[in-house]
Amino acid sequence: MAIQRKKITVVGAGFTGATTAYMLAQKELADVVLLDIPQLENPTKGKALDMLEASPVQGFDSNIVGTSNYEDAAGSDIVIITAGIARKPGMSRDDLVNTNAGIMKTVCENIKQHCPDSIVIILSNPVDAMTYVAYQTLGFPKNRVIGQSGVLDTARYCTFIAQELNVSVEDVRGFVLGGHGDDMVPLVRYSNVGGIPIEKLIASDRIEAIVQRTRTGGGEIVNLLGNGSAYYAPAASLVQMSEAIIKDKKRIIPCIALLEGEYGYDNLFMGVPTILGGDGIEKIFELDLTSDEKAALDKSAQSVRNVIQIINI
Amino acid sequence: MAIQRKKITVVGAGFTGATTAYMLAQKELADVVLLDIPQLENPTKGKALDMLEASPVQGFDSNIVGTSNYEDAAGSDIVIITAGIARKPGMSRDDLVNTNAGIMKTVCENIKQHCPDSIVIILSNPVDAMTYVAYQTLGFPKNRVIGQSGVLDTARYCTFIAQELNVSVEDVRGFVLGGHGDDMVPLVRYSNVGGIPIEKLIASDRIEAIVQRTRTGGGEIVNLLGNGSAYYAPAASLVQMSEAIIKDKKRIIPCIALLEGEYGYDNLFMGVPTILGGDGIEKIFELDLTSDEKAALDKSAQSVRNVIQIINI
Amino acid sequence: MAIQRKKITVVGAGFTGATTAYMLAQKELADVVLLDIPQLENPTKGKALDMLEASPVQGFDSNIVGTSNYEDAAGSDIVIITAGIARKPGMSRDDLVNTNAGIMKTVCENIKQHCPDSIVIILSNPVDAMTYVAYQTLGFPKNRVIGQSGVLDTARYCTFIAQELNVSVEDVRGFVLGGHGDDMVPLVRYSNVGGIPIEKLIASDRIEAIVQRTRTGGGEIVNLLGNGSAYYAPAASLVQMSEAIIKDKKRIIPCIALLEGEYGYDNLFMGVPTILGGDGIEKIFELDLTSDEKAALDKSAQSVRNVIQIINI
Amino acid sequence: MAIQRKKITVVGAGFTGATTAYMLAQKELADVVLLDIPQLENPTKGKALDMLEASPVQGFDSNIVGTSNYEDAAGSDIVIITAGIARKPGMSRDDLVNTNAGIMKTVCENIKQHCPDSIVIILSNPVDAMTYVAYQTLGFPKNRVIGQSGVLDTARYCTFIAQELNVSVEDVRGFVLGGHGDDMVPLVRYSNVGGIPIEKLIASDRIEAIVQRTRTGGGEIVNLLGNGSAYYAPAASLVQMSEAIIKDKKRIIPCIALLEGEYGYDNLFMGVPTILGGDGIEKIFELDLTSDEKAALDKSAQSVRNVIQIINI
Repeated sequence: MAIQRKKITVVGAGFTGATTAYMLAQKELADVVLLDIPQLENPTKGKALDMLEASPVQGFDSNIVGTSNYEDAAGSDIVIITAGIARKPGMSRDDLVNTNAGIMKTVCENIKQHCPDSIVIILSNPVDAMTYVAYQTLGFPKNRVIGQSGVLDTARYCTFIAQELNVSVEDVRGFVLGGHGDDMVPLVRYSNVGGIPIEKLIASDRIEAIVQRTRTGGGEIVNLLGNGSAYYAPAASLVQMSEAIIKDKKRIIPCIALLEGEYGYDNLFMGVPTILGGDGIEKIFELDLTSDEKAALDKSAQSVRNVIQIINI
Repeated sequence: MAIQRKKITVVGAGFTGATTAYMLAQKELADVVLLDIPQLENPTKGKALDMLEASPVQGFDSNIVGTSNYEDAAGSDIVIITAGIARKPGMSRDDLVNTNAGIMKTVCENIKQHCPDSIVIILSNPVDAMTYVAYQTLGFPKNRVIGQSGVLDTARYCTFIAQELNVSVEDVRGFVLGGHGDDMVPLVRYSNVGGIPIEKLIASDRIEAIVQRTRTGGGEIVNLLGNGSAYYAPAASLVQMSEAIIKDKKRIIPCIALLEGEYGYDNLFMGVPTILGGDGIEKIFELDLTSDEKAALDKSAQSVRNVIQIINI
Repeated sequence: MAIQRKKITVVGAGFTGATTAYMLAQKELADVVLLDIPQLENPTKGKALDMLEASPVQGFDSNIVGTSNYEDAAGSDIVIITAGIARKPGMSRDDLVNTNAGIMKTVCENIKQHCPDSIVIILSNPVDAMTYVAYQTLGFPKNRVIGQSGVLDTARYCTFIAQELNVSVEDVRGFVLGGHGDDMVPLVRYSNVGGIPIEKLIASDRIEAIVQRTRTGGGEIVNLLGNGSAYYAPAASLVQMSEAIIKDKKRIIPCIALLEGEYGYDNLFMGVPTILGGDGIEKIFELDLTSDEKAALDKSAQSVRNVIQIINI
Repeated sequence: MAIQRKKITVVGAGFTGATTAYMLAQKELADVVLLDIPQLENPTKGKALDMLEASPVQGFDSNIVGTSNYEDAAGSDIVIITAGIARKPGMSRDDLVNTNAGIMKTVCENIKQHCPDSIVIILSNPVDAMTYVAYQTLGFPKNRVIGQSGVLDTARYCTFIAQELNVSVEDVRGFVLGGHGDDMVPLVRYSNVGGIPIEKLIASDRIEAIVQRTRTGGGEIVNLLGNGSAYYAPAASLVQMSEAIIKDKKRIIPCIALLEGEYGYDNLFMGVPTILGGDGIEKIFELDLTSDEKAALDKSAQSVRNVIQIINI
């Protein structure tokens, strides 16, 4: 039997979904299906064709298809869900919840039918809760239902640290636990540059400012853009997770995973350090936390639970 | 003296400009300044910050700054101009001309002042005419004023050929002369896959269909999108040209160059095959043309002249 | 079932084999098994370990194993055979034939047993004949037994053309038919830079000099080195072929393929343009040849047959 | 003035030097000059030509020149010195010292004359002492004389940690201080995977075994090869350092730097964490050490001094 390319479907052809699709194709990680609702079929096809027309310039041979038909997604190795309405300036993440939960349910019913063996990555907000909805709808084993938040939160955190010290981003390693939102828990003592703990290099008030800026990093972009939310760094985050899976890299990546006792939580999706490889989430690391850190994580967990409770679909 | 990064400024932070900036940074070709008008300063800063926040994930150390201040562009090695209003569905390229000529003039006056040693690449439409306006305003030597059209047109042409034959885009080599628009002149006999002339592999009616689809390739995307025009393939084209210059690659790339006698035209900017390297356009290739090809090129040249004549700024 | 990495075995851990293994791993195309005879097991392990120790610096996660045990090669998607004694200065390619045919037979019997589903790429010289021996021994369908020569010969040819014109190697497209050796047939009229036929740009005596230098390109390196033969460009060629297969790129690549009537030859392995993809050689292109070109190809074919006739194993 | 490519000269065309040259060119970091003694001029030219002939396959436009003439190195931005006789099995690093010191002095006199503005990276063993000899001979400011050891030692350390935990090498961050040799000081408490200290994940006896294997990592390869020493990982290390400089990345990289009071040592070259950027070593980090760590570092410093004392050139 011939060797075939992998296949990744991106649901939601907005800025984040489209940028993700393009980056996946550029890296030749897989053939890409960009999928949105029938009303947006033509723009979705237009974006896919525009991307494909970049391929001779960039030398990538991944195919990119725009569609509104889930049959085109059949056989996908990974499905990335970016569908959902975007956060507007001033809008709380919680306001989005029921609308997006309904969208998530519809999308996942289709994925369950057409891509039963896929690994599913969820970006849609509020992401901890949406990952829970996806898990309930899909009925997939927990290692194959993964939410994105920690890669993006960590990326922002590391950007600010690199700027503070004027060093390469390649050498900054941050660490963020908990839900995606104002209650996320950057673990300062596990953050380092080139192995050196940042506490040795940055004054504590500056670290605190960086932590605070990270927590509100999504809102900072929303406020600057005035219309819409971040999509470059979110797309890059989704691509990193996809690459870890497609190449079975076994990367240590913070993911939103189903906790079943880890960190003392049960039946809760929240951001924790994991090993991400060809089988999805292959391991969850349980770290010792200080009492302050555990209290912060409890608060974050409660925020996630609060969102889930308002879901009514 | 220490080794410093190169610097590229992208004027116009719309989809094409922003995508170009992001790809330049990802490739670590240079530090990038994304510049738009003061009214759009915040969104421009937001896009730049979002891109920068992807850098720890992707491991690139290029800085990206959003601004409306040309002083931030000072010292740029390359300036890419994407500014201008976009073509809307049903709008002819010619309708754009005077509005965009005015924008081009203002932009180039600023570049002349702040980036006097830069090489300038123009994407704004109608691009042959806008390159002429830029050249007039900048007063730079002709090798440093370059319009983009042939890379994009060729990319579309090659995409369609690769699809027709189901072969890698890496092995398709197309060739498009003339102005960017319906009168462009794809040179079929210089187009090949893996060195084999496409005329040996594709029936003539199919080639004709591919040529025609290429000529209207921009409109095809505009019609599908319904709102806005292509930006992925245009951005990739700008990045390829920038890379050829920054790395002094001496690539053979179709560029809009000032013709001073070549092909029998004088004082006309039009798409011709060139060598693109560290000194901008280092050479123009003059090819033998059949009488049909020359007639088509004449028609294309006349179209470019027609646009220039309606400029009134 | 989890996504797993592909697997490529390189038989022969000399300079070419080792360099090939390293480049495959760097590109994360597959996990790599580097295999040589039991007497060389320790050096083979040493090279593999040295390569693996480069992985944290370069960020690749392909595993590299050194071994002399074919069981470690089990399940390989591709097997690359570089085994054989090297050409020494003054030694004709034909002198190598029976020694290397014996080696090839032993290697292929092991591959047949342990990697029955693999696609096999042969580099060992004289390569046209060795590919024939491999095909006979393996009993695999013809699309899965492929010899390398044209990629390397073409690479040399393109290097000389790029130097002659001082242009980017990315824009030079050469074309070489026939056996690997002094009788190879560079097709000048299908060679171009940026689509422009080289005959328009380079004087005919200079082209002839380039063709002649290409024909003796292997010997040029052998004579300079004084001890051993080329391995960087050969390794790069093997990697390009492997990438075309692993990513199912459907590249148009000159390969040594079994001809069964194509070009008027039967039951002969010789270099022809092919489509190389996930199923190995997916197509052979038959080109119209001038009578001179056909005569040159006939001479090359006869050279290949002459070598095969002296095989006595 | 036109944009020009950077230039890097690699002195010593043995396995490490040649592999370094090839990787630099593949990454298009600079044009590359590969330089060795006149007696090896032909093999050096042969290697350079072989590499160049890989460029059309890999699409890189860096030029590669083989030479024995230092005039060809004129204007180099970086000079990498790999010259010196290699460590043989059973040979102590100290045995090499006076032979290699003489070679180093000759090389550096030539560099001083022909590349007075270059940044110099030394690999030749015993590297701490050789860097001292180079500094004395060159008379360059200390930021432009840099020894390689920590990147390689760290790479080995990280390889073993990644294997122990079966995780991606991209997420392992090690940290090695001190001289290159059996007395190097891996800082276990600053080593982590994905930010998590390895002490939380690996039993202490296993960590100790990894540390010990790292210390003798060079010898492990020497013993396996039976003839010659490691060159893939050393070359990758040199390329990473070169890239940090050429792109002004300001990476945090352990380098052999001139200590003038740092860590309590004066006028001593030894491995310490630095910021490596366009100005060479832009900063040395001074870390708090435990008394055990300081004692180990003292021992390592003494080893370096012992070697320097036997230099008699």
